[in-house]
This record gives sequence, structure tokens and C-alpha cells, in this order.
Amino acid sequence: MRPREGAEWVLSTDAFLENVHFLLRVHPPEVVGYKALARATSDLAAMGARPRYFLLSLALPPSCTGKWFDRFLEGMSRAARSFGLVLAGGDTTRNRLAAINLTVIGEVAPGQAVLRSGARPGNLICVSGILGEAELGLRLLQRGWDKRKKWKRLLRKHFYPEPRLALGEWLAKNGRATAMIDTSDGLSTDLAHLCEASGVGARVWANRIPQVAVPSAMRKLGLDPLKLALDGGEDYELLFTVSKRTSRRLPRVVRGIPVTVIGEITRERHILLMDDAGRTKALPAQGWDPFRIHQ
Amino acid sequence: MRPREGAEWVLSTDAFLENVHFLLRVHPPEVVGYKALARATSDLAAMGARPRYFLLSLALPPSCTGKWFDRFLEGMSRAARSFGLVLAGGDTTRNRLAAINLTVIGEVAPGQAVLRSGARPGNLICVSGILGEAELGLRLLQRGWDKRKKWKRLLRKHFYPEPRLALGEWLAKNGRATAMIDTSDGLSTDLAHLCEASGVGARVWANRIPQVAVPSAMRKLGLDPLKLALDGGEDYELLFTVSKRTSRRLPRVVRGIPVTVIGEITRERHILLMDDAGRTKALPAQGWDPFRIHQ
Repeated sequence: MRPREGAEWVLSTDAFLENVHFLLRVHPPEVVGYKALARATSDLAAMGARPRYFLLSLALPPSCTGKWFDRFLEGMSRAARSFGLVLAGGDTTRNRLAAINLTVIGEVAPGQAVLRSGARPGNLICVSGILGEAELGLRLLQRGWDKRKKWKRLLRKHFYPEPRLALGEWLAKNGRATAMIDTSDGLSTDLAHLCEASGVGARVWANRIPQVAVPSAMRKLGLDPLKLALDGGEDYELLFTVSKRTSRRLPRVVRGIPVTVIGEITRERHILLMDDAGRTKALPAQGWDPFRIHQ
Repeated sequence: MRPREGAEWVLSTDAFLENVHFLLRVHPPEVVGYKALARATSDLAAMGARPRYFLLSLALPPSCTGKWFDRFLEGMSRAARSFGLVLAGGDTTRNRLAAINLTVIGEVAPGQAVLRSGARPGNLICVSGILGEAELGLRLLQRGWDKRKKWKRLLRKHFYPEPRLALGEWLAKNGRATAMIDTSDGLSTDLAHLCEASGVGARVWANRIPQVAVPSAMRKLGLDPLKLALDGGEDYELLFTVSKRTSRRLPRVVRGIPVTVIGEITRERHILLMDDAGRTKALPAQGWDPFRIHQ
């Protein structure tokens, strides 16, 4: 590969494994192909980089050849075209379970890549889109509720997340964002990552968080929108910080994506959630963690 | 990452999977760590690139934490230092079986990367080192013969292969090699890859191939040195072609590694093996193929 003169490169590598990240029984092959690449590409968005190439390392069982494989490639091609990525190489082998690894390569203007470590006390915390939608889709699948026709559309964000590439680039330009991360593990966990890298704390206003709309039938069954928005993973939205001065000039919609201020960075290294009445409590990182035993 | 002015980048991604590429029961953790990185880095050697960075994607079961993991990292660190690689990022998750993926990034002077596709009729075919040593080690392991003390040293090449980085760089300089590949799958299979990419055929002289020395006790048990040298995988030697003119100036030892002329490239797209008596027969690609069912 021949890097563009003066450009900096951003690379990310990401495993997407059967029975850890997806289930062949419930996820259509197009979804597996699309999502494997979308997840990795979201890391480029979170640094403000423009996607260029990807490498695909593919280990598949015999059951994932033929028709399954054609549909898998269809989903991945769609993602590649949509994100502006070109397949530049890879590796193929067989395995008892499907094990996919993506490496994505993006470019960014010198010095403009946004890191996790730049958040400063007094910065405002912003998030793109709506939080908890992907988790809601996952819960529907887990409970078998996705069979109900009227709820099918609620699977969309879980199946086909959209890396916020245009927004990420916009935020990287001229240092608009001081720090950035994508919400792959969930707001509570990813905010903790960002704060740890920056050596700061945060205060989040619960009533400002753009929460998923949960049908009332599902609320009655125990799905709480705030809980989904705080701890639900895989939305692949951008969580970023801006200076107070920048926040005044920040549009509510950037490149078609809503942007919401949800809190502020603090010097005290605690992460707190403030409710409508102004009471605060600790906001524990309870998003996705592969090393925690899930109930 | 900030690429050096004018340099070109070479990237390779490589899966290293439990029960496909290694067995936790027989391969020490240091070997798993070292070999995972050595295999990937050999792809850089085969293009004449100088290693710079690597990305590690790691999915491990609980049994591969603690002591096992420390020893794994020890082996991988040793490989990284020895090859000049710096860990630049990665991904971690849990999985029922160990699934490791390496992405390596190297640099090469503009236009000097050696491809598989440059072999021309009349070029001579060369190979570095000795072929079949890694396969011999594997066979010892499979038969449990590695317990015999005097045969332990025969595992070395299977456990700790050495990417031929200095030789690869030397061959890339000034276009000394017209085409190159590493012998990861075995001579017969990798020569077929090179010939296919170049649109040519080859004639190999059996008695010129630098074959592994097989102890006579093992020969009696059915291990044939020529067969091991032709089809044995994982030597990670360099298989390359040079013009006749270059071959006259080619030392027998380059950067400490023996280099042997073993055949010539032909216009006819067959791959032939010629024996001592000058008889030729087809040389089928019978090296490692993950998609073939092994006996």
C-alpha cells in the first residue's frame, strides 16, 4: 500500500466469533458479514479517520460454505461499499466454529486523529443518535419475540449498525472533539473507558440521554429504556467531549445524525448519574464485558 | 501511525487457531506465542519488507490465563524483539478455544516489494535453508517420539521457525528476486502458488533440493526425506526466482542463510520433478491445505 503524502494511518483489529459475538441459529449470514465489518469500521469513525482498506481473516466450518457463504459475502460487500472500504488481503482456513477477524485501515490528516485521552474538566459530553436500540433488538431475539411482525423492525440496529463515519470526520476536523470513543460496550462502560484514558470523571444527566423507545407491552415485561440506554452494547454511536466554547456552536444535527449533550466532565474521578430531582448516584460500568460471567 | 516519507507498506493478517494450527496439549505456551507472530512475519520477509508494527487479536478460554498467558506473552515478546516489531494495538475477548489473529505491518522502499507474480521463463528457482525440518518435528510430536532425548532438538524448526527477514530484504533490493513466497504450506504447494500467480510452470531437480537429515531409525519407520522436503509445511523458508544473470552473482550463503538453486521456470504451465536419471514426472501440490481432509 502507498499511503497518501503526509497522511496518518489508523488501524484497528476486531474478532467476531460464533457463540461469543453472534449465533448462526439466529443471525442471518448477511448480518454476520455486514456486522463483522461495521463493528471494526466504527473504531475508525471514533478516531475521525476515513476508511481505506480492510483485511479479512476467515476461519469457517463446512456448514458456512456454499449458499451461506454467498450471503455472508453479500452482507460484507454491502458494508464495504457503504463505508468506502476496499478488500486488500486476508487469510482463509477451516475451523469447527466460525471465527472472523477484521483489520481496518483508515487515513486521517496529520495530528487530527481524536484519542480517548483528551477530555478535560468542564468539557461537555455528547452522544450521537439514540442509545439502547441495539440492545433492545438483542433482547427481542433472546426472548423469541422477533417473530411478532410489528416488532421485526426493532431488530434493525442490532443487525445493521451504522458506523458514524461522516460525523466522526466532522468532529476530528479542527479539533472540534477533545476525546472520542464508540459505544460498542454501552454508555456506562465506554464512558468509563474514556474517563480512565483522560484521567477525569463525569456527571451524566439521566433525563438528557436519548433513550430507545420501548413499546409499552415490553416495558411491562421488564425492559427499562434508561437501563437499556446506559448499559446496552453495540449501538456504535459516537460518545465524545467538546469544550464549552465549541458546544455553543455545535448543531443539534450533524451530517443527518442527531447530537445530544448528556453531561459534563469533572475533575473528581467518579462517574455519576444525576436524576430529574438533582440527586446523584454512582454510574457503574455495567455494559458488555467479555470477561464477566453474564446471568 | 505515521508512515515514513515515501515508504510503501506491506500488511498481512494470519489466523492461528487451537486444534487447527496448534494443540494446547503438545505445544508449550511460549511456542504458541512465538509461532503465531513468526508465521505472520514470514509474509513480510517474503515481500522483502522490514517489520514495524503488529496488532494482536486474542480470544482465549479461562484455562489460558495466569501462568499460561505469562508464558505465551514471553514467547511472543521474544519473537517481537527478534523481528523488530512493536505491538501497536489489538482486541481481547474470551472464547471456548484459543483463537489468535495477528496483523503485521512492514515497510519497503517504493517499488521494491517482491510479488509472487514476477517469475519469467528461464528464471532459476532458489530456496533458503533446508526443507522438511518443521514437518519432521511435527511427525515426531504426532508419534510421541519427542520424548526420546536425542530427538528433542529435531523439534526446533517446528517450534521456533525463523522468518528470513534479512535475506528477504537483501533479495528485494535492486530487484534481485523476480518473484518470492515463503514455504508455509510446503515446497510443492507454494511453488504452485508462485507459478500460478506468474502464469508459468517449473522444473525442479530432486537431487538439488536441500533435504532434512532424517535419522536412519526414522527412515526405517517410513519417513522419506525427499517427501518431507517436497510436501512438508511450516519451514518458513524463502522460495524465490532470479534471472540467469542475477544467479551468476548469487552467493551460496546470504546473511548467514544458505541459498540453493533447485530448478528453473518454464513457459509450459506444468510443474515437474526431475530425478537423478533425468526422468521427469508431475509434482502435485501435496503440501498443507486446510480445506483438504487429511488422513
